[in-house]
Amino acid sequence: MTPLPCAEILPLSASIKNNRLCIANCDLRDLAEQFGTPLYIYDEQTIRTICRQYRSSFEQRLPGVRILYAAKAYLSPALVSILVEEGLGVDVVSGGELHITQTGGMPPEHIGMHGNAKSRAELTQALNANIGRIIVDNQDEIDLLDQLTRERAQTQDVMLRITPGVDARTHKKTTTGLRDSKFGFPLPSGQAADAVQRILNAPHLNLTGFHIHLGSPIYNTAPYKQGIAVATAFAAEMRDQYGYEWREFSPGGGFAIGYTNNHLPPSINDYADAIATALHTACKKHALPLPEVHIEPGRSIVGRAGVALYSVVARKHIPGVRNYVAVDGGMADNPRPALYESKYKALAPEKITEPTTKTVTIAGKFCESGDILVKDAQLPELVPGDLVAIPASGAYQLAMESNYNLALRPAVIMLRNNEPRLIRRRQTPSDLLATEVI
Amino acid sequence: MTPLPCAEILPLSASIKNNRLCIANCDLRDLAEQFGTPLYIYDEQTIRTICRQYRSSFEQRLPGVRILYAAKAYLSPALVSILVEEGLGVDVVSGGELHITQTGGMPPEHIGMHGNAKSRAELTQALNANIGRIIVDNQDEIDLLDQLTRERAQTQDVMLRITPGVDARTHKKTTTGLRDSKFGFPLPSGQAADAVQRILNAPHLNLTGFHIHLGSPIYNTAPYKQGIAVATAFAAEMRDQYGYEWREFSPGGGFAIGYTNNHLPPSINDYADAIATALHTACKKHALPLPEVHIEPGRSIVGRAGVALYSVVARKHIPGVRNYVAVDGGMADNPRPALYESKYKALAPEKITEPTTKTVTIAGKFCESGDILVKDAQLPELVPGDLVAIPASGAYQLAMESNYNLALRPAVIMLRNNEPRLIRRRQTPSDLLATEVI
Repeated sequence: MTPLPCAEILPLSASIKNNRLCIANCDLRDLAEQFGTPLYIYDEQTIRTICRQYRSSFEQRLPGVRILYAAKAYLSPALVSILVEEGLGVDVVSGGELHITQTGGMPPEHIGMHGNAKSRAELTQALNANIGRIIVDNQDEIDLLDQLTRERAQTQDVMLRITPGVDARTHKKTTTGLRDSKFGFPLPSGQAADAVQRILNAPHLNLTGFHIHLGSPIYNTAPYKQGIAVATAFAAEMRDQYGYEWREFSPGGGFAIGYTNNHLPPSINDYADAIATALHTACKKHALPLPEVHIEPGRSIVGRAGVALYSVVARKHIPGVRNYVAVDGGMADNPRPALYESKYKALAPEKITEPTTKTVTIAGKFCESGDILVKDAQLPELVPGDLVAIPASGAYQLAMESNYNLALRPAVIMLRNNEPRLIRRRQTPSDLLATEVI
Repeated sequence: MTPLPCAEILPLSASIKNNRLCIANCDLRDLAEQFGTPLYIYDEQTIRTICRQYRSSFEQRLPGVRILYAAKAYLSPALVSILVEEGLGVDVVSGGELHITQTGGMPPEHIGMHGNAKSRAELTQALNANIGRIIVDNQDEIDLLDQLTRERAQTQDVMLRITPGVDARTHKKTTTGLRDSKFGFPLPSGQAADAVQRILNAPHLNLTGFHIHLGSPIYNTAPYKQGIAVATAFAAEMRDQYGYEWREFSPGGGFAIGYTNNHLPPSINDYADAIATALHTACKKHALPLPEVHIEPGRSIVGRAGVALYSVVARKHIPGVRNYVAVDGGMADNPRPALYESKYKALAPEKITEPTTKTVTIAGKFCESGDILVKDAQLPELVPGDLVAIPASGAYQLAMESNYNLALRPAVIMLRNNEPRLIRRRQTPSDLLATEVI
């Protein structure tokens, strides 16, 4: 039997049958026939398994921990219902995400709201929904939330997001813990301490603790340790300064996944170990109680579960320069290579056991030179109509998708053993006109 | 009277009244109250004036020239109906764009279709619609189009896109004329010449001429001259080799606009002069007839006509580091700064006559550090609720917009003297669920 190539970055249920790539026992060619391409495929088993790994890895080290899925990685009612069943909560960053999360059936007490510029409408929506936590990000937000909760005579649990000044060494567009960040309260200037006092003085705001977020994806555990040291020292300061004792703490998310098989992240256990050890140590050092911890994985819950499936449309051979293989999707459904120069692997599902004799560049169909999905992929010879699968496509692709070139957004399916379920239909041309006033 | 700041990059109808910025005599504060923010505003007068400038500049130098608007910059039925009235055609790059262009009332003979990976379905849609030109991009497309036109016994006019090997010195993601490009047929390898022969041998394909596209935006005229020299030499070769005489030629689009007032493009007359002179000279040199020319402006038709209008939500002052002002939109409606490090100007419409005493960074509301709209803008002091206007927002912003963070897509209005007209309503949370299968 041929071993599965790239097994580390494919969904857990991936296998080879009849020399073709299958996920949850579904042959990708059959799925392409049934649902068309481009197609986004999620493997339910992978999502559930990773949810359980998060719970067990963290619960055994940090009693009372809560796992809150970071909705911005990908959100749909179908996903939320799985998260509910797995005992996770959800972190949202907008009124739209809150709406979908509620539509999916998540109890409001398990919802947190982030954001550097939450509008009055969004905060009102959050208060109407009675969500569990609002993570406050700036002084204007504290003022607005203080005013709204007074007007409504409604008490709201809040966490304070502080900027730890830690470099997570991820892409500069996704590093959030540095001092020059649009997120959170700076520590050195005393603004974070002032904010604590302001919240403690607000009659209807209940400060449960502190929050940091370092960036994403983070491929080593050191930034978490540094961030926890900073946050814990701050918690001790606040105790000494105001007699305030934290009850909750979040080291954020940012947990990485493998996009290519030569760049793999630490295991969930490794992240949990690093975070729990650092927190236990720091709390002991500062004689602080161990807070209830909120962990916010997004990418790492759904990233590996997703596979993007395309059809080859055309080829272009430039002698001595490059071989292009153009597929029927690209930067509209996956802007990450254009935005972050993200690297991916490409596989040929129907030729998965054939030798990879060709070096080809997988180009998208969009009218822009930057629309390249994978540079210099090693693949068997491909002809128009062949399938191309890109693993690790479950996070920040559909979430950032556009209708550039008025492409129709792809269909999305969820697979459970041998059973594909359409969770989002493909757009039609009339969807493009839905909001136009004609 | 205070002079209008940034007049060169604002819509032509911009003015100051009662110390506030107006477009088409509409006060931006009134528009924000009526339609909400974020709001995209188009000025009809600017679009029409620029359409007329294109026609007159090129028609006086190149008889029979056609101006085809490049739909990918921004497309809506409302815009298409203006283009129809102004006598322009449209270049589309997908089935979706073709659908909207037809919905807007463009006669099919004035539609061209581009694309490096046109699918069978898209080519069939184009043939069904009887569009004027298909610009063929690769050998697989010629084979497919040959097959489809034979099956249908339908003749189709086509142009051949060749890669001129010219560096337009624009952003690497938007430079298309280089030899290593996913677009067009390479010349040195003889592939372009082979393609001419293949098309001449296809019974239902009628080769009208050649097409080049250099990239976008191009801030000087030199690349056009170089591209035209290469294309004309190739046309002469094809005459000598196959007895084929070109009747049409397109030097593409890529005409720039000013995003900031210290980086302005050549005038339309300058572009027209350069293109016409280069073409006349090259045709004379090679004893070729002057072809009918197709000009493909996109960005330069709609870019300056558009203004993005946001409200300030929150501020963040990091002592000694940076002042952030966060607004209610960002990389979901304008991904260009994140994608291309694009520079913009920010204005305070209600404080347009006040001294710009502050250096602030305009951050978007999206949960990503890369979501910065304008770095180090010079503005008066801004407080939550104030408006921020970003000129030159008409192209490649709505076209590339996403629902990242499940943001609702903004409303779009078209202004004609004192009359705002809603051409696209703001999305609602239920729009986010339109294609979900629940």
